[in-house]
Amino acid sequence: MVVCFLAAVLLYVLICRYIDMDFKKGLSVVLACCICVCVVRGQMSESRLSDWVNPLIGTSGMGHTFPGACAPFGIVQLSPDTDTIPHNVDGRYQAGVYGYCAGYRYEDPTIVGFSHIHLSGTGHSDLGDLLIQPQTGELSLNPGTADNPDGGYRSRFSHAKEKASAGYYEVVLDDYGIRAQLTATPRVGIHRYTFPKGADARFILDLAHGIYNYDGKTLWASLRVENDTLLTGYRITNGWARCNYTYFAIALSKPLKSYGYRDRQQPKYSGFWRKFDIYHNFPEMAGRNIVAYFNFDNTETQELTLKVALSAVSTEGALRNLEAEAGGKSFSRLCEDTKQMWDKELGVIKCEGTDDQKAMLYTSLYHTMINPSVYMDVDHRYRGIDGNIHVAEGFENYTIFSLWDTYRALHPLLSFLKPDRNTDMAKSMLAHWQQSVHHILPVWSLMANEGWCMTGYHAVSVLADALAKGAEIDRNVALRAMVATANSPLMTGVEDYKLKGYATYDRDATAASNTLEYSYDDWAVYATAKAAGFDSVAKEFCRRALYYRNVYEPQRGFACPRYGDGRFKEGMDPYQTYNEGFIEGNSWNFSFHVPHDVFGMMRAMGGEKVFRERLDQLFSMDLPEKYYADNEDITADCLVGGYVHGNEPSHHIPYLYAWTSEPWKTQQWVRTIMNRMYRNDIRGLGGNDDCGQMSAWYIFSAMGFYPVCPGSAQYVIGAPYLPYVCVELPGGHSVEILAKGVDDSRRYVKSLRIDGRPYDKLYITHAQLCNAKTIEFEMSDKPNRKRGLQFEAKPYSMTNGDW
Amino acid sequence: MVVCFLAAVLLYVLICRYIDMDFKKGLSVVLACCICVCVVRGQMSESRLSDWVNPLIGTSGMGHTFPGACAPFGIVQLSPDTDTIPHNVDGRYQAGVYGYCAGYRYEDPTIVGFSHIHLSGTGHSDLGDLLIQPQTGELSLNPGTADNPDGGYRSRFSHAKEKASAGYYEVVLDDYGIRAQLTATPRVGIHRYTFPKGADARFILDLAHGIYNYDGKTLWASLRVENDTLLTGYRITNGWARCNYTYFAIALSKPLKSYGYRDRQQPKYSGFWRKFDIYHNFPEMAGRNIVAYFNFDNTETQELTLKVALSAVSTEGALRNLEAEAGGKSFSRLCEDTKQMWDKELGVIKCEGTDDQKAMLYTSLYHTMINPSVYMDVDHRYRGIDGNIHVAEGFENYTIFSLWDTYRALHPLLSFLKPDRNTDMAKSMLAHWQQSVHHILPVWSLMANEGWCMTGYHAVSVLADALAKGAEIDRNVALRAMVATANSPLMTGVEDYKLKGYATYDRDATAASNTLEYSYDDWAVYATAKAAGFDSVAKEFCRRALYYRNVYEPQRGFACPRYGDGRFKEGMDPYQTYNEGFIEGNSWNFSFHVPHDVFGMMRAMGGEKVFRERLDQLFSMDLPEKYYADNEDITADCLVGGYVHGNEPSHHIPYLYAWTSEPWKTQQWVRTIMNRMYRNDIRGLGGNDDCGQMSAWYIFSAMGFYPVCPGSAQYVIGAPYLPYVCVELPGGHSVEILAKGVDDSRRYVKSLRIDGRPYDKLYITHAQLCNAKTIEFEMSDKPNRKRGLQFEAKPYSMTNGDW
Repeated sequence: MVVCFLAAVLLYVLICRYIDMDFKKGLSVVLACCICVCVVRGQMSESRLSDWVNPLIGTSGMGHTFPGACAPFGIVQLSPDTDTIPHNVDGRYQAGVYGYCAGYRYEDPTIVGFSHIHLSGTGHSDLGDLLIQPQTGELSLNPGTADNPDGGYRSRFSHAKEKASAGYYEVVLDDYGIRAQLTATPRVGIHRYTFPKGADARFILDLAHGIYNYDGKTLWASLRVENDTLLTGYRITNGWARCNYTYFAIALSKPLKSYGYRDRQQPKYSGFWRKFDIYHNFPEMAGRNIVAYFNFDNTETQELTLKVALSAVSTEGALRNLEAEAGGKSFSRLCEDTKQMWDKELGVIKCEGTDDQKAMLYTSLYHTMINPSVYMDVDHRYRGIDGNIHVAEGFENYTIFSLWDTYRALHPLLSFLKPDRNTDMAKSMLAHWQQSVHHILPVWSLMANEGWCMTGYHAVSVLADALAKGAEIDRNVALRAMVATANSPLMTGVEDYKLKGYATYDRDATAASNTLEYSYDDWAVYATAKAAGFDSVAKEFCRRALYYRNVYEPQRGFACPRYGDGRFKEGMDPYQTYNEGFIEGNSWNFSFHVPHDVFGMMRAMGGEKVFRERLDQLFSMDLPEKYYADNEDITADCLVGGYVHGNEPSHHIPYLYAWTSEPWKTQQWVRTIMNRMYRNDIRGLGGNDDCGQMSAWYIFSAMGFYPVCPGSAQYVIGAPYLPYVCVELPGGHSVEILAKGVDDSRRYVKSLRIDGRPYDKLYITHAQLCNAKTIEFEMSDKPNRKRGLQFEAKPYSMTNGDW
Repeated sequence: MVVCFLAAVLLYVLICRYIDMDFKKGLSVVLACCICVCVVRGQMSESRLSDWVNPLIGTSGMGHTFPGACAPFGIVQLSPDTDTIPHNVDGRYQAGVYGYCAGYRYEDPTIVGFSHIHLSGTGHSDLGDLLIQPQTGELSLNPGTADNPDGGYRSRFSHAKEKASAGYYEVVLDDYGIRAQLTATPRVGIHRYTFPKGADARFILDLAHGIYNYDGKTLWASLRVENDTLLTGYRITNGWARCNYTYFAIALSKPLKSYGYRDRQQPKYSGFWRKFDIYHNFPEMAGRNIVAYFNFDNTETQELTLKVALSAVSTEGALRNLEAEAGGKSFSRLCEDTKQMWDKELGVIKCEGTDDQKAMLYTSLYHTMINPSVYMDVDHRYRGIDGNIHVAEGFENYTIFSLWDTYRALHPLLSFLKPDRNTDMAKSMLAHWQQSVHHILPVWSLMANEGWCMTGYHAVSVLADALAKGAEIDRNVALRAMVATANSPLMTGVEDYKLKGYATYDRDATAASNTLEYSYDDWAVYATAKAAGFDSVAKEFCRRALYYRNVYEPQRGFACPRYGDGRFKEGMDPYQTYNEGFIEGNSWNFSFHVPHDVFGMMRAMGGEKVFRERLDQLFSMDLPEKYYADNEDITADCLVGGYVHGNEPSHHIPYLYAWTSEPWKTQQWVRTIMNRMYRNDIRGLGGNDDCGQMSAWYIFSAMGFYPVCPGSAQYVIGAPYLPYVCVELPGGHSVEILAKGVDDSRRYVKSLRIDGRPYDKLYITHAQLCNAKTIEFEMSDKPNRKRGLQFEAKPYSMTNGDW
């Protein structure tokens, strides 16, 4: 630095002499130059999009997000786990478990360790595989408790010494004085631990740790010390993922000094192993409940870097992943590479707005790029739902499809922003179908297992939407898969549904919502079959797409469960979420769930006026607390009146005004929801992010439109949240969305121009959007009550409400 | 039949008319022809070698053989299990378990079911995977007990309705009236069940059953009903094989009517599976302790055939094996194919002798071709000891190497009779070494696991012997593996052994026998290194090969354990098997364990006279019962004097007379041993067959020679047991071994001619044997006391006893 400065001064003196310039005058020129450079550099660093990401958003409250490090769509999410509440005790569900879906709660005082796979924002959980915790001092092989952290390997920590950003996490483990830094490539978690000088250096690898753990969840774990800088192994677990294989390879930055393990469940059969001391420096460890430790010399360097590569295929696969993604690279280089990956992925959207708005937008975008996750080795080999190892020919295989959530906005968003990835996800679903013993598309795809979580067969919506937007998927294969899935007897109530036109409450406790969901999904099959010219399939599913009509009680105009003999459930409480025939939603919200035939739904409710007033009432009602007091998925945080934003079935509702005589009310309510449900804060998410669905809603709404009916290739226009958004589409084309002066008061759309031409409709098609250069909103503090009233302006509806 | 007979009569009448022959005359011609045909057919059927095999030999007493069906060297041994004594209860070893190594005891009254993998003749056990039991009447999903068979799915049976032959087993399950027929290809077990008319038809698949089972041994089992005639699945067990993967595919000859399963250990985590009735007709079963059942229609046909293909790789692999080996073939065709495989493999030896002698010889040959077993799919993919899936390039991969037993005679026998297979076994051992985290050759290879059973590193002997006999193995790679193994610190006491010249009794409870075994193994390394010109290795291991000298107590001339300070164990009881420094053998027997330097051993004992008299004493002593009263491996059945034939360390001892002045005594004792230890009877084996080692000893001895020192390429000549043996060698060359008039009295060799020329030596080399046409023994009822006395006649000895 000093040398550089002296050299620069010398150069300056020489140049001044050469051009014969006054020293002082020259100095001011230099100063100006320096300022320019600094400003430019400042802008450059400001323009690093990954810096806007705040992974701590949602780590408290309902978000269920994790703060750790991951690469875009990677299978590794290396993150601190702050507690390990077992999911049940003596067969009973444990209270408090729900909060630990992501393994981390901001308010917790201790970190148990850093594990490698986390679900982002779910309401049910699993994983937390391969927990690593660095340690000094006395060896401790049990995790300890939050009340008594000294009784185990966990450590206290403080948020003052915690940093989280896209692809990077850092914390100091106060009990040990160890600084932990984490980063990740798609398939490799990288740990850098700096131990205090003079201390022992050790890390614990707890192969029995897990999220939603229970005693015996790990069926088997195995570990080989290949040499003094390489470990390999795997574990098999029986959790939400019924049988989950996690292979690993761990490269160590310095040689092992010694190692060992404890088996907390001594094997009943020890056979001839008794002849060895297998617990100390024996390079082959295995068991049902094992925790290993590894000691290092800490004298020459206090740093220890671990590169932990994962594979669902084999330890060979993990080694290949390690070499391909992290071989020969330093922690810093890998961290920078991952940040650049994030910059590139996030670069799909440029925007203007306040710092908080930008943090919220880019964090949302970040949250849409964690799950689904790439589920294959670098050589394209992956574990299929049939347990066999397949090669993904011509696509990347993905897992973690939370489809009841993500068919709504996440997949449409990816279809728009990352169409190649979304196509690969669709292909992954088709591969799943081909390998499924049930011969159905995924419901909740989880690490080569079917998680069976929630209802409907919404993979058909994802396929229909991708096809409608031009994805290169074999339409015939897709349609075969969609029809097979829609006809599978495994779908609760579907047999009655097919026979009677509705799932019957006699045999299906969530018959009303199931009928509504099936009905929409069937529309997606219908639309796809129609576009492909499969007339008989189209005809059958056209009929089924209208079955929603059968569950609206004519007197009250609410969706209501119905018995096999035709009777509606008497006294159904439309405010009540549970035991009234719906799943995770009450009739007030679910009755709006006919995204494919809004005019038809309007008629089912009693006409436009009833429908519109009911929308108004939904957003402004005062929902008595008893309706959400004991509800995990609905809290005061996630309510706008009786509208539940924190859970998915309602996400499209604010956009339904488009079909009414007061379309402007969408603009009013969407901004209110955004302000209340999305904040740059640890409690900033109004509900479970649900693998990016909540975030995808935010991004669409911030751009000013939303896919109310995926599969229709239409977006219903609301109003932009930000004054400027530019979307860089894959082909190099970009769309600018302008809303000059937009803010909480100027939230209303006065007029709209596309590429300079006035545009009066309330929807925009996918093709229009992808070809437009500018979409210019003129904003106002007063609604334009006349805009979008004519029939031609209305978005898609399967019928006009004529029965 | 009747139609044929009438047609034949008609034809005969017509022919007689046509050739104008008298009817009666003609009749006698026809009769003569018929007799000829019958005789020829009779001879043909008599010449079917597989018919001589009696798989029931050794199924009672000590043999530990199984009666079921298998193909030569196949991984499937489909056999009835008659009981399932858990290997331990509350951590304590269970008495009686030892007898059930093969799953079957002839004296048992019930059959639990038919399982697919069995060890042949071992003294420790595992496997018994995928138990299938056909059933009628009330569904029962637990095995029941021998005392109360009606309490479970097991059935009574009687030996009157049992048939066992090479590749075929049949029995009637009396409780159900079901006839069960079994056959097998190398990778597929085929069951044919004939149910009583009118009954239900069902089979049970118990995925928790096993040999040496315990509660929790099955880590996980999974089963998919792919369609109504195909099941796939796998199970993972933690037994002797620490983690054993058995995948399967089961093709059904008629469609399933219904099915279900019970999980005896209800999962703690049932997740969203609760929404289905997974226990009935749900095509995806899984759990830790599950037993499934499958119901069939029994009205049209009472037969049900199951083809159960195994793989250690994947269900895809199992399906490939199924298709390749059993696709499109009937039970009868497959059974006949397997019999033909046996005829071909057994055809390597033609012989004359009594029926019992032939049964014993061919059954012995059969027993040498069960284990080791081919351990790879038809596409050459296999599971390695590292848990990864490998492709066996240019060889067939084998498992089940009981090397402490089989290096002695089984591998030399295969090296002689089936050199290609033995070469592939050697290559399998090298692959094991390359994949082993311990970087050693196998000790007891068991289904991609190291079983660590018994002592020494005798794989080096197998490699040395194969190389000495010209096997095409990379000599350099082999030597690297041998040296690495001989230096592995895992070998008990080897560090002391290397440092002090003997394993020390302070730190090794079987220090004396270990020293003797290591010393021989080191000779094998030395011999290989010397032949390959690796002088420094040869020099080092030449020294180590003589370390046996360090454990002979000078006063008594017995091998004796020795402490680190040089002292011998005081008062070592040479008759006692346990706690005297030896493993599974007493000093009386183990003191003869220097096969590579018999002259040196002679000196260690006190000279030729002492040595010879001690041999005499060994065979004629009256070993007090207290020395074998509580010993699993030594019983009165397996003793000739104090010589223990039922366990391996002594197998070469009767041949040691060759180095003495009374070589003829070998001829005397070998025949005695053969007569007493090998009988065509259920209790016909004097000890555990040990994966063919006992049988290989018999075959060599029956031919008249034995490989005392594998690796030397010499066989020590005894005397033939049979008057005629012809060995068909792979190249098409055959060797006839003649011993006209040999019987129990004419057991002595008067003279010997090879290809007509007199031959005076007491050994024959591998090359001589493979090139000879006839080896003609002249037998006598009196020993030729002068034969083989000159030094030149003596077999190999590393030294002449000059220290």
